[in-house]
Amino acid sequence: MESIPDLIRKKRDGETLSDEEIKTFIKAVSDDSIQDCQIGAMLMAIWIRGMVNTETTTLTQEMMTSGEVMSWPKEWAGMVVDKHSTGGVGDKVSLVLAPALAACGCKVPMISGRGLAFTGGTLDKLESIPGYSVNQSGAQIREILESVGCCIVGQTKKLVPADRVLYALRDATSTVDSLPLITGSIISKKGAESLNALVLDVKFGRAALYKNQKSAKELAQSLVNAGNSLGMRTAAVLSLMHTVIGRCVGNSLEVIESLETLKGRGPDDLMELVTTLGGVLLVMIGLVSDQSEGQKKISDAVIGGAALSKFQAMMEKQGVAKEKALSLCSTQTDYFSVLKKAKHQVELKTSTKGVIADVDGLVLAKILQKLGAGRSKAGEPINHSVGAELLVSLGQKVEKGVSWLRLHYDDLAPTSDQMNQLQNILTVGKHEDAKIKEKETLVKEILLPH
Amino acid sequence: MESIPDLIRKKRDGETLSDEEIKTFIKAVSDDSIQDCQIGAMLMAIWIRGMVNTETTTLTQEMMTSGEVMSWPKEWAGMVVDKHSTGGVGDKVSLVLAPALAACGCKVPMISGRGLAFTGGTLDKLESIPGYSVNQSGAQIREILESVGCCIVGQTKKLVPADRVLYALRDATSTVDSLPLITGSIISKKGAESLNALVLDVKFGRAALYKNQKSAKELAQSLVNAGNSLGMRTAAVLSLMHTVIGRCVGNSLEVIESLETLKGRGPDDLMELVTTLGGVLLVMIGLVSDQSEGQKKISDAVIGGAALSKFQAMMEKQGVAKEKALSLCSTQTDYFSVLKKAKHQVELKTSTKGVIADVDGLVLAKILQKLGAGRSKAGEPINHSVGAELLVSLGQKVEKGVSWLRLHYDDLAPTSDQMNQLQNILTVGKHEDAKIKEKETLVKEILLPH
Repeated sequence: MESIPDLIRKKRDGETLSDEEIKTFIKAVSDDSIQDCQIGAMLMAIWIRGMVNTETTTLTQEMMTSGEVMSWPKEWAGMVVDKHSTGGVGDKVSLVLAPALAACGCKVPMISGRGLAFTGGTLDKLESIPGYSVNQSGAQIREILESVGCCIVGQTKKLVPADRVLYALRDATSTVDSLPLITGSIISKKGAESLNALVLDVKFGRAALYKNQKSAKELAQSLVNAGNSLGMRTAAVLSLMHTVIGRCVGNSLEVIESLETLKGRGPDDLMELVTTLGGVLLVMIGLVSDQSEGQKKISDAVIGGAALSKFQAMMEKQGVAKEKALSLCSTQTDYFSVLKKAKHQVELKTSTKGVIADVDGLVLAKILQKLGAGRSKAGEPINHSVGAELLVSLGQKVEKGVSWLRLHYDDLAPTSDQMNQLQNILTVGKHEDAKIKEKETLVKEILLPH
Repeated sequence: MESIPDLIRKKRDGETLSDEEIKTFIKAVSDDSIQDCQIGAMLMAIWIRGMVNTETTTLTQEMMTSGEVMSWPKEWAGMVVDKHSTGGVGDKVSLVLAPALAACGCKVPMISGRGLAFTGGTLDKLESIPGYSVNQSGAQIREILESVGCCIVGQTKKLVPADRVLYALRDATSTVDSLPLITGSIISKKGAESLNALVLDVKFGRAALYKNQKSAKELAQSLVNAGNSLGMRTAAVLSLMHTVIGRCVGNSLEVIESLETLKGRGPDDLMELVTTLGGVLLVMIGLVSDQSEGQKKISDAVIGGAALSKFQAMMEKQGVAKEKALSLCSTQTDYFSVLKKAKHQVELKTSTKGVIADVDGLVLAKILQKLGAGRSKAGEPINHSVGAELLVSLGQKVEKGVSWLRLHYDDLAPTSDQMNQLQNILTVGKHEDAKIKEKETLVKEILLPH
């Protein structure tokens, strides 16, 4: 067997690693027999030299089997599905989609992550609900899927230990944005969920990791390829991420917007993403014959309230008190009787008359992060109540002096500089024909399994 | 100030690091505020992307000043010199050159290293002399230089701490053979000796790190450039390294050959290297007006016995008992009354009549390493008495059945496979005009400071 320095040298020199060599590397990462400096060197060599498809697939496979791989009852065969997003601003799709899929009869063992930098995390959002526990064992996950059909939980210690090690070092070594490493990390975790179908929401644009559709498509193709190679039907949706998805950013506020959506009162862009992603999954598992039928089925589950019932049941199963879950899911409710509200709200006003042409989601997210809504380092606490509500929508005509953003903040007040920056994220066009950044639909392309 | 991941990212992307950025990196290495994975990633990025001359010089400078920098009495100004070799088989040049330079009035604070893999280490050789201590403090070094003029010692803990960290990780991360990293490591250590002149013996050929003159010259130019940038007059000698330097390989045996040389009975190839390297140094410090004068002065110091006296005095100062030093330096002596002799000697015989055309130094060194003469990991103990003596020289006519190699081994006996390999390192040509590998002179090129 080759030594670790041999493997590093090979990748350093741009050679292709064999299955056996990748296995040796991942095994050494999992059993802690490799030095941290060697992991750093290998990550950098992979970042610079890249990997061919077969290497990426093997890397993903070996990462997946570095820990426990879930197994499901035979009766669920063909119905186990999940979705993953590369992260955006105000992306609460999972909170609506998971229960909608469950309402369609799917099993959704959704293992999510936490937010870092300007991107929010699904687990953080759910933890703004008092009592909601993201820590569920394999047995508990199975039980929730049995009775409800969906759960949204954190990664268990036993799943994909190799990823935990590599993921932690990639940030420190500037090797995050590597196609094979991203692919390995995302798909190995989804592979360990033993899914029948997986859909990926790969975002591009100002407020996404990938700034243009071309680079997003490269990632999407790598993810689709690796997922299908592991035996999951895998598709990817390329969607635009310039401004905010929906109108709310911030953990509690996004839970509220998700619940409003599950009550049939959600914003169009969020519904577009939920139905498109859900529709792709329903087609892949053969529950419907085409995409439009799939989208309608998901839409019906949301509009008709079936998804809301699933969300309510999931909350209860994951530790939320029955009366609180009921209150949150009632048609008329004061959300802040259950969720924590920030101490202060301040409204920003338009400084000119015209048409809402653009809202910069990235700058908004970065300022909210600084006010406590997000973290700059893994493990840092966050303030769930900090966030912002957009009070206008793109294309809307406004007068001067109209409230367009409501900022929720706590003890950490925004500086005047931050207030100025916030005011500047808004672009008001002079005429009705102002070039509006993103009134169009968000979904730009769908990559289906071959 | 930029963060470490920022610096890594910059080098990863092939950008040139500023002086300030290199300083930040080396400072973090020295004060242990950087993670090992980050050092590994940076080393790999440097290995792949390289460094421009100014980066290499700054890296070297910052490594040098990461610890103590030696200072010398004013009276020594212009006379402090040293030599460094990139390593070969049977390379005992330092043991002869240091005392020869001292005999010419130079001050030689020679800080040497240990052997690894097939290359021997000067410190290991000297430690085969009972009592010889390579561990000398800065104050002790100064005192030995004051009274003797030369010392050969190990690196003190206070010198170039950044190199100790990087050097230890380069092997594990497959980033050893990088021009800027080698340059930084070698020249920072020599820079910390506060030399007036430095000569480098950069070896190329079968039994060297660099296999051809072109790649050796690249390294030599990088070393010469960095040394001169730090204010040391620095030159490099490119010399051939195919077979053994002299006739002995192995620690005790090489000490014996060095003493024989200091008694005026040394082999031509060793004397060629000693006088060439020494001559270059004497020219650089202006003690002589040209290279041939310099070589003669060094040769006289060796042949006339002045260098031997310096070696004897140095041994005593570094811990060898007076009577043992005297015995080793006597004209007629039984070296093995002082040095340890291996338990077994076996002679290999020529299997054909002809002309000695080639002896493969690399294979010989690798087998001796396995028999205990060298180590495969830093810190491993070695057996000083294991080694081999060549009993013939290139171009010599031999009959069949003549002893050509005497192998010295201890409890670890050579396997029959190793004996066969040893027999195969010898090439005997059929005719007098057989193509002889290396009867020519060893020095191929000299690079002087601009």
